[in-house]
Amino acid sequence: MRILLVGAGGVGSAAVSIAARRSFFDTMVVADHDPGRAGRAIAGHDARFVAARVDASSAGEVAALCREHRITHVLNAVDPRFVLPIFEGAYAAGADYLDMAMSLSRPHPRNPYSETGVKLGDAQFAAAEQWREAGRLALCGIGVEPGLSDIFARYAADELFTEIDEIGIRDGANLTVDGHDFAPSFSIWTTIEECLNPPVVWEADRGWYTTPPFSEPEVFEFPEGIGPVECVNVEHEEVLLIPRWVGARRVTFKYGLGDEFIGVLKTLHKLGLDSTAPVRVGGVQVTPRDVVAACLPDPATLGPAMRGKTCAGTYVTGTGPDGHPRRVYLYHVVDNEWSMTEYGHQAVVWQTAVNPIVALELLANGAWTGTGVLGPEALPPRPFLDLLTAYGSPWGMEER
Amino acid sequence: MRILLVGAGGVGSAAVSIAARRSFFDTMVVADHDPGRAGRAIAGHDARFVAARVDASSAGEVAALCREHRITHVLNAVDPRFVLPIFEGAYAAGADYLDMAMSLSRPHPRNPYSETGVKLGDAQFAAAEQWREAGRLALCGIGVEPGLSDIFARYAADELFTEIDEIGIRDGANLTVDGHDFAPSFSIWTTIEECLNPPVVWEADRGWYTTPPFSEPEVFEFPEGIGPVECVNVEHEEVLLIPRWVGARRVTFKYGLGDEFIGVLKTLHKLGLDSTAPVRVGGVQVTPRDVVAACLPDPATLGPAMRGKTCAGTYVTGTGPDGHPRRVYLYHVVDNEWSMTEYGHQAVVWQTAVNPIVALELLANGAWTGTGVLGPEALPPRPFLDLLTAYGSPWGMEER
Repeated sequence: MRILLVGAGGVGSAAVSIAARRSFFDTMVVADHDPGRAGRAIAGHDARFVAARVDASSAGEVAALCREHRITHVLNAVDPRFVLPIFEGAYAAGADYLDMAMSLSRPHPRNPYSETGVKLGDAQFAAAEQWREAGRLALCGIGVEPGLSDIFARYAADELFTEIDEIGIRDGANLTVDGHDFAPSFSIWTTIEECLNPPVVWEADRGWYTTPPFSEPEVFEFPEGIGPVECVNVEHEEVLLIPRWVGARRVTFKYGLGDEFIGVLKTLHKLGLDSTAPVRVGGVQVTPRDVVAACLPDPATLGPAMRGKTCAGTYVTGTGPDGHPRRVYLYHVVDNEWSMTEYGHQAVVWQTAVNPIVALELLANGAWTGTGVLGPEALPPRPFLDLLTAYGSPWGMEER
Repeated sequence: MRILLVGAGGVGSAAVSIAARRSFFDTMVVADHDPGRAGRAIAGHDARFVAARVDASSAGEVAALCREHRITHVLNAVDPRFVLPIFEGAYAAGADYLDMAMSLSRPHPRNPYSETGVKLGDAQFAAAEQWREAGRLALCGIGVEPGLSDIFARYAADELFTEIDEIGIRDGANLTVDGHDFAPSFSIWTTIEECLNPPVVWEADRGWYTTPPFSEPEVFEFPEGIGPVECVNVEHEEVLLIPRWVGARRVTFKYGLGDEFIGVLKTLHKLGLDSTAPVRVGGVQVTPRDVVAACLPDPATLGPAMRGKTCAGTYVTGTGPDGHPRRVYLYHVVDNEWSMTEYGHQAVVWQTAVNPIVALELLANGAWTGTGVLGPEALPPRPFLDLLTAYGSPWGMEER
């Protein structure tokens, strides 16, 4: 297997550190628009790793780099704005493709808070037939969420339930950053985008529909000492992926932003500070959302000062094999202290990065095979969950 | 009486409209750094009004304008940053002086949230002896708050109580702006300044001291349908003025910001968006607080879309003449619909502007006399309250 990793940011760098301990691949080309960053990501690792420069917005450059290095698998680890050129570049070069976020949505032009417009991943699923006919695989949304969360959903359907009422992804953390009152552990720019887009929900008798932001708040109890966190509906790939392969009456994604963070986002929106349209201030033009980001510490620098754990998981309700109601939370927790000590990467990026590396190993050893545009729930869950545990990062399950 | 009004903004323009209906003065020169704005403020009024240009930061320019027009009284209606040059310019020209906000404070360098540093008005009181010896009067803080609120305090002490426990200024409104989710009816820049400065409290056995911002929240019930509003301690002149002339165990000022507005201010502070230190965004430098102001509608334009009432008042607790405990709220309410219809000025600026005009009329007719640097509570309250009612804007009183 010859891998092209596009993006040497937080997730890409963590993916290099995880892959470096495994032997299933022959080469990994790490490409970034900043070749210095790609070089830093591979520094100290073995000769299988090669740094390169790429413009991720150019399908042609991605394809050329694939051909130059005889790439078999492209792993996209950049901003979702670049999904389509990388997806198309991989196809053009005859490589398989993996990503951790799907092509972007556009709200419904008239009824944004009740109907879907262009959905997450629509542009990729439109090419599914073409990928299948070419015998190539695009495995989409194979980070932690989407990714591991989808695998939990398929595992629940295969082994834990005879009938499923709701599959609810629930993501929460108790991360804090020493020395800062308020310091998000991920990009505020992206969080604003994600949280202010209309959340999407799927119901068997209604299909996909949207709601206003921050809908259906609930306090979810997270395991391993994280405790209760306020969660709200957020637009996320799982809601678009899971219903294509797993039977359920309802699929939701709720993000454990916590009431403080939700309050901040609502206030930014109320004041127009989430806007990406430039405003005139004195003699200059600036984008309010960029000013908000500039006032906060850079999340990439916060790892050493972070404390706490992050949890991704899938809460499933329905009927168990014994015919009785069952409620199960399948989850994966990463302690920042562990990921920093063990890998030198903070918990949130490490937890995202481990999953595509596990998936690549399953594709390399033949445990996973497929063609077309697939979500992680299209493939057998057991080999994945076992290999994740073998990577030293076990998952958990709570009956509730 | 020959008046120089410095500042033709919201309050200055409303003061012109109110004064135009009275006959107690011979001339009013309306001066602004923007002579066009001064011209618009006097447009349509009688020949006693003259527009002029002045740089309010120059005591020399203020004094020269006083001499040119043989001014007897200077009314300062600009931003408190310009208090000292106007105060000094009036003195230099031998004119009496009135303002609606006093010289600015500076927090205590080591213990900002427990001890006062330079207090509001300190720079003006330092010149009190000089004004007294010259036989000139500086009547400070004669808007609505400070101003009418101070007069209510003196009235309570003179006529309603034999002993006072607490004089608590309480300011609240139910103003909304059609077409806007969030649109402050006053400058967000100034509100941030006022609300994030350490609030000051006075106690007879402790003197002046400060607290952290937003301290001692209480829900105060405002009259005339405004209802309950969450109020918190804010730095304000009354706390510095009242104890100099009126006996009480405790003096406080609480601003009815409401929990929504308090939340907005806390969030801005938490994210560093209240800061006046420039940040680099892309290729330019901007001040976060200026960006916040640029994202919100200009309060000066909101009058026609505003609805509701604003209330200023003084809540006094203590012992009544009958020896029993007494609690009284003395208040003044302005309905925006009334002030827009009657004067074409929104409620908040109209309510501020009426008080210095009433005060000037009392000085003109001799009901008020004095020398030195005085607060409104240094002068007899009855003539003021009666004349305010005669202006068509009666005050009220509730026993509680």
